[in-house]
Amino acid sequence: MTKRIKMKPGTRLSEQPENIGMNRWHPDIPAITHVKPGEDIILETLDFLDCQIANNDDPSDVRDIDLTRAHPLTGPIYIDGAEPGDLLVVDILDIGTITPYGFSGIFAKENGGGFLAEYFPNAAKAIWDFHGIYTSSRHIPGVRFAGLTHPGLIGTMPSIDMVHEWNRREAPLAAEGKAKPPYEPTAYVGALKGAERDRVAKEACRTVPPREHGGNTDIKNISIGTRIYFPVFTKGAGFAMGDLHFSQGDGEIAFCGAIEMDGYTHLGFDLIKGGMAKYKLKQPIFVPGPTDPKFEKWLMFEGICVEDGKQYYLDATVAYRRACMNAIEYLQNFGYTGEQAYMLLTAAPVEGRIGGIVDIPNCACTVAIPTGIFDQDILPRK
Amino acid sequence: MTKRIKMKPGTRLSEQPENIGMNRWHPDIPAITHVKPGEDIILETLDFLDCQIANNDDPSDVRDIDLTRAHPLTGPIYIDGAEPGDLLVVDILDIGTITPYGFSGIFAKENGGGFLAEYFPNAAKAIWDFHGIYTSSRHIPGVRFAGLTHPGLIGTMPSIDMVHEWNRREAPLAAEGKAKPPYEPTAYVGALKGAERDRVAKEACRTVPPREHGGNTDIKNISIGTRIYFPVFTKGAGFAMGDLHFSQGDGEIAFCGAIEMDGYTHLGFDLIKGGMAKYKLKQPIFVPGPTDPKFEKWLMFEGICVEDGKQYYLDATVAYRRACMNAIEYLQNFGYTGEQAYMLLTAAPVEGRIGGIVDIPNCACTVAIPTGIFDQDILPRK
Amino acid sequence: MTKRIKMKPGTRLSEQPENIGMNRWHPDIPAITHVKPGEDIILETLDFLDCQIANNDDPSDVRDIDLTRAHPLTGPIYIDGAEPGDLLVVDILDIGTITPYGFSGIFAKENGGGFLAEYFPNAAKAIWDFHGIYTSSRHIPGVRFAGLTHPGLIGTMPSIDMVHEWNRREAPLAAEGKAKPPYEPTAYVGALKGAERDRVAKEACRTVPPREHGGNTDIKNISIGTRIYFPVFTKGAGFAMGDLHFSQGDGEIAFCGAIEMDGYTHLGFDLIKGGMAKYKLKQPIFVPGPTDPKFEKWLMFEGICVEDGKQYYLDATVAYRRACMNAIEYLQNFGYTGEQAYMLLTAAPVEGRIGGIVDIPNCACTVAIPTGIFDQDILPRK
Amino acid sequence: MTKRIKMKPGTRLSEQPENIGMNRWHPDIPAITHVKPGEDIILETLDFLDCQIANNDDPSDVRDIDLTRAHPLTGPIYIDGAEPGDLLVVDILDIGTITPYGFSGIFAKENGGGFLAEYFPNAAKAIWDFHGIYTSSRHIPGVRFAGLTHPGLIGTMPSIDMVHEWNRREAPLAAEGKAKPPYEPTAYVGALKGAERDRVAKEACRTVPPREHGGNTDIKNISIGTRIYFPVFTKGAGFAMGDLHFSQGDGEIAFCGAIEMDGYTHLGFDLIKGGMAKYKLKQPIFVPGPTDPKFEKWLMFEGICVEDGKQYYLDATVAYRRACMNAIEYLQNFGYTGEQAYMLLTAAPVEGRIGGIVDIPNCACTVAIPTGIFDQDILPRK
Repeated sequence: MTKRIKMKPGTRLSEQPENIGMNRWHPDIPAITHVKPGEDIILETLDFLDCQIANNDDPSDVRDIDLTRAHPLTGPIYIDGAEPGDLLVVDILDIGTITPYGFSGIFAKENGGGFLAEYFPNAAKAIWDFHGIYTSSRHIPGVRFAGLTHPGLIGTMPSIDMVHEWNRREAPLAAEGKAKPPYEPTAYVGALKGAERDRVAKEACRTVPPREHGGNTDIKNISIGTRIYFPVFTKGAGFAMGDLHFSQGDGEIAFCGAIEMDGYTHLGFDLIKGGMAKYKLKQPIFVPGPTDPKFEKWLMFEGICVEDGKQYYLDATVAYRRACMNAIEYLQNFGYTGEQAYMLLTAAPVEGRIGGIVDIPNCACTVAIPTGIFDQDILPRK
Repeated sequence: MTKRIKMKPGTRLSEQPENIGMNRWHPDIPAITHVKPGEDIILETLDFLDCQIANNDDPSDVRDIDLTRAHPLTGPIYIDGAEPGDLLVVDILDIGTITPYGFSGIFAKENGGGFLAEYFPNAAKAIWDFHGIYTSSRHIPGVRFAGLTHPGLIGTMPSIDMVHEWNRREAPLAAEGKAKPPYEPTAYVGALKGAERDRVAKEACRTVPPREHGGNTDIKNISIGTRIYFPVFTKGAGFAMGDLHFSQGDGEIAFCGAIEMDGYTHLGFDLIKGGMAKYKLKQPIFVPGPTDPKFEKWLMFEGICVEDGKQYYLDATVAYRRACMNAIEYLQNFGYTGEQAYMLLTAAPVEGRIGGIVDIPNCACTVAIPTGIFDQDILPRK
Repeated sequence: MTKRIKMKPGTRLSEQPENIGMNRWHPDIPAITHVKPGEDIILETLDFLDCQIANNDDPSDVRDIDLTRAHPLTGPIYIDGAEPGDLLVVDILDIGTITPYGFSGIFAKENGGGFLAEYFPNAAKAIWDFHGIYTSSRHIPGVRFAGLTHPGLIGTMPSIDMVHEWNRREAPLAAEGKAKPPYEPTAYVGALKGAERDRVAKEACRTVPPREHGGNTDIKNISIGTRIYFPVFTKGAGFAMGDLHFSQGDGEIAFCGAIEMDGYTHLGFDLIKGGMAKYKLKQPIFVPGPTDPKFEKWLMFEGICVEDGKQYYLDATVAYRRACMNAIEYLQNFGYTGEQAYMLLTAAPVEGRIGGIVDIPNCACTVAIPTGIFDQDILPRK
Repeated sequence: MTKRIKMKPGTRLSEQPENIGMNRWHPDIPAITHVKPGEDIILETLDFLDCQIANNDDPSDVRDIDLTRAHPLTGPIYIDGAEPGDLLVVDILDIGTITPYGFSGIFAKENGGGFLAEYFPNAAKAIWDFHGIYTSSRHIPGVRFAGLTHPGLIGTMPSIDMVHEWNRREAPLAAEGKAKPPYEPTAYVGALKGAERDRVAKEACRTVPPREHGGNTDIKNISIGTRIYFPVFTKGAGFAMGDLHFSQGDGEIAFCGAIEMDGYTHLGFDLIKGGMAKYKLKQPIFVPGPTDPKFEKWLMFEGICVEDGKQYYLDATVAYRRACMNAIEYLQNFGYTGEQAYMLLTAAPVEGRIGGIVDIPNCACTVAIPTGIFDQDILPRK
């Protein structure tokens, strides 16, 4: 019988009946369980906002969110025999829902923000109902699609040196308000208590950026059937994950977010001893599974490196923002508000591609939407 | 019988037996032919470097390239009845090779450069032989794949106001050497002669960046079966194209380039009168064809927004560069040099995706390579 | 909370702690539960041989099988409001394993037989271990693939007139030993008792052939995400299902069978009132889900209508048998026995297609195997 | 420059300006050209009815067809060095149209017939216009799809012993009118003249059935990018092909036929010396190309082994006929006549699969239609 780490739905991480996780990264956080190479485990995880969002039509919970509680993770899992320098082979055997709905949203510009916060400064929310592999939303009518379910956040534990290095290199941005430094009050660091808890809570890294251990990768294609090779930086590897997405568009542009949900993930583990040196790997690599939903027709928008009349140099961020804005403006021809289109791009299986990045002075990016997700024809007609 | 605009292979644009094109954008360049909505045409096009690259093992031609001759285009084509404000519907009915090989390469850092010029400053070249839809290269052994053939450069003619605006907005970057201002000596502006030729040659826009009319889009998915909706900015639309790619990776990261080739493209045209306003379109949109080669397994690399120990803010360009460097370093485990891996990433059907772009302070991008293109196993093993 | 009908793994249908089903079709079998249109249910089902096959290396259980116990089904489910003439819309929301292995096998020619019984008269067995969506077998080494999990048997309840008609039309074949007439001793007809049980058990139809209500369709593509429109022949519809397959090749040629397993299926129901007449439907129609595993390369074998030197006329059965035999003979070049190859064809996601069926005097069929399921190269080489 | 065998469009094989082929199989037919292993060739081919069908709305040409002229083939091609026992490796590098339209049709029951001749006894015709990879027909409105272009007929030359064997084994069926014996008057056997021509014309095999050398395989998936391994039975291999299909449904059920066209095929050749014994191959095997058009949603019909109230035993032909009739009846809900639906099934990229073939007494087959080819919704709605 496969071991299963259970959570209580709707209950924030720090108030769970049993300790199941953490919302920071630090190697001194004790493992919640251990598995042997070759063994499986099922991990239940809370939604990425720690149960702060309700199934209703009022976005004030999104507007007033406490983001310092973001990313409750289940873990760390200690893998017997894992040592620094190994590769941890993780198979995503299955992912499933527990609560039969999820949410996507737009954070307010002053609290959370997002890729298009300049254009959409107000909080918004869409609830998505799940029906097997399909989802639809009463807040974005006329759209239905199969999800490419995946964990937004998955990784191994950094060494203490990495913790220090991450905090160091992020400090300049944090000083500008563009990154999040350690924050003790809402840090939940597992079973630690007292002074030890406080020490770790003050030092532990926040969860937002993806880093060399994986972390908040937000790669929509690492769905069921995926194999990941993670570097091991600490004894036992310290695997943890959370932030399940029922579906996500490339870039998860609204930050809040994909279609966010609680759920469970069935995982298998193996080790390649000494694999980091053998394959010169310093970051995880991924072999996505073979079962992503098929789509036959896409509508693709391009963005170029020009914004407000200014030409940018080799700036894929500007180019992707323009591609997204072009898509959002176009979708308004078909009865959607800008906010709805924005929440759709962040949630549906849209492809965001780098195109012509090296073209000088410009670069281009594209965003493509499968036309079959709409119940109306969205192509131009005479 | 479909009309066919023929070029003489191996002969630079300005010395073609008949005038077939241009290498700049300007609305005063006369059309080479006209077609009616509903009609087809076949356009032969030269390779994007205007016949300067030889099928041999010596990269000195790449090193010494005259880039001001880049992008010989076939056109403009005058579409009867097209007026500013319309949408020009372009169907890519077929694309084929003429010369049975193509090239990819690395420009020298001092002449052309590319996305990874800091890491690969020296010129290199790979010749690719075509065998139907498949290609392989004696310079990158052990790799074979089906191409997703497409035009790198395709668009409609800008208005004269747009020409002025483009030159204006690119001037600051041009002053830094990051963009290319108009350059009269090698401008080829079709059938114009004398003073009129000189006036237009001095004013006409260079071809490198993608702009609001399409242009150098370098989108690998606009292959056979694609439909494009272009804005029309001038009477007759002034359609032109060139820069055929047998295959390309997202981003065409080496700039020189994809698998570059001469060839022909069979095109169909139609008009949606007044379509720009009807659909609020200021840039082309694309519906890619349904026949891209299937791949079942991909190896995906992630790049994060950290370079040389510095954390960048929301910078997809840095993230994609790191993803590419991670892939290049990994492929060296399997017998490839860095240059070979770089030329492979720019040429093979790799997917470059925006992942988690809005994550703050960081963002991530991914690059994924289909494993089936290699004749060896490239996954980590125990 | 979705209702779940639970079975006890490893316990034959007639000895389950609670009545959950039946192994015959008859409208007088009482419903085990009811659901409303729009509601979901989860049904657990036993393997198609009613727990007679053990996870070991000895095929004597296959050889000595009691086939009259075949096809324990979970059901019937009464759908509120369903009446004859309606269409019952069934969504396959999810399918999962319970016991982490399954089996495929070859029945002995004298007991069960199969498509190639003349060539493989002896019983054989392969146990398949499940690891998420992938499976492999110690009995057929060097093969691993993702399953296209589906129910082999799914349908609505026939009317009493249909029961009589089915028994009537199958009687001539039954007299020749080519079909199975009603058989009272092992009939399990749900909660019925005493004389009523005996009456129904003597009359109820066997489960092997697919019929107008669906039944033993063995269509490998009706996997997760599939929608089926079933005719309703009785009040309440009487939906039932079983015979889950982890994976199956088209034709399920060995009869015993696909990769057979117990497991659960999450189902949704809806009604189209009067839909049979509205759409002139007398049999179910199917819209397969979008997530079947991708394969990029297939090796395809053809069979023609010639066997033992005799030319057959328009006989797809002969043609498909030759295609299968050609495949089996070929696979023996790579270290497999004929029995292993046969069990692989019945179990792996092979495509069996009708090709040129109307060619006179001949027809052809093909069977295609994805090459990526093997850990060796199976294409001819110089 | 690749050698190209040219035909004159619209001119029957026997009146071509130069001899390019044959419409029978016999090893004494002289090769029209030779190629070396590693070389390519382009073969132009006539349509399968030898230019007897006109682009108009009158099916009388289909009704009055002279079928003894069927299957004009281009060839034989002599491959240098090929000897009996080798495998001839044939790469389908490209296929293209010459005349921009094709046809599908229904033969009259008394002249040609077809799979459903009992139900559709009268001749009918549909003309299909080609627009790049897409086709549509004024005779079957509201349908448009990308073709999976392929040769219906492709093979190597039989030995004289095989010719005798084929004639022998087909004679009993020919006596019943179910097969076609040699027929001298319209036999075209290449450059042979006089008595030698007459001798070969009387002996040469007709082209309809697929046989051990390939021949009239009608496999829709052997499109661009396909590699075929053919047995070599005669010195030089004697490769020939024809009967190009722009698109075809599995089974090509109307016999007349797929979407029939003239066109060209670019081919590459190689040899595996002694490959027949090495791989125990007596028939060709196929590796289909990777670029078949994607479809995301299919509507699937099932046929069971019951016709006119009679239960058949293990008869895939009956089952497939019922599946096709079910599809045809259903499509009539959406404005199509039975004849139109029949001509659509034979022409569109429908999948005809063997399902549950071994189920005793029954078997089932399915036919699936991609829903995206219609400009209306063809699923049942409330």
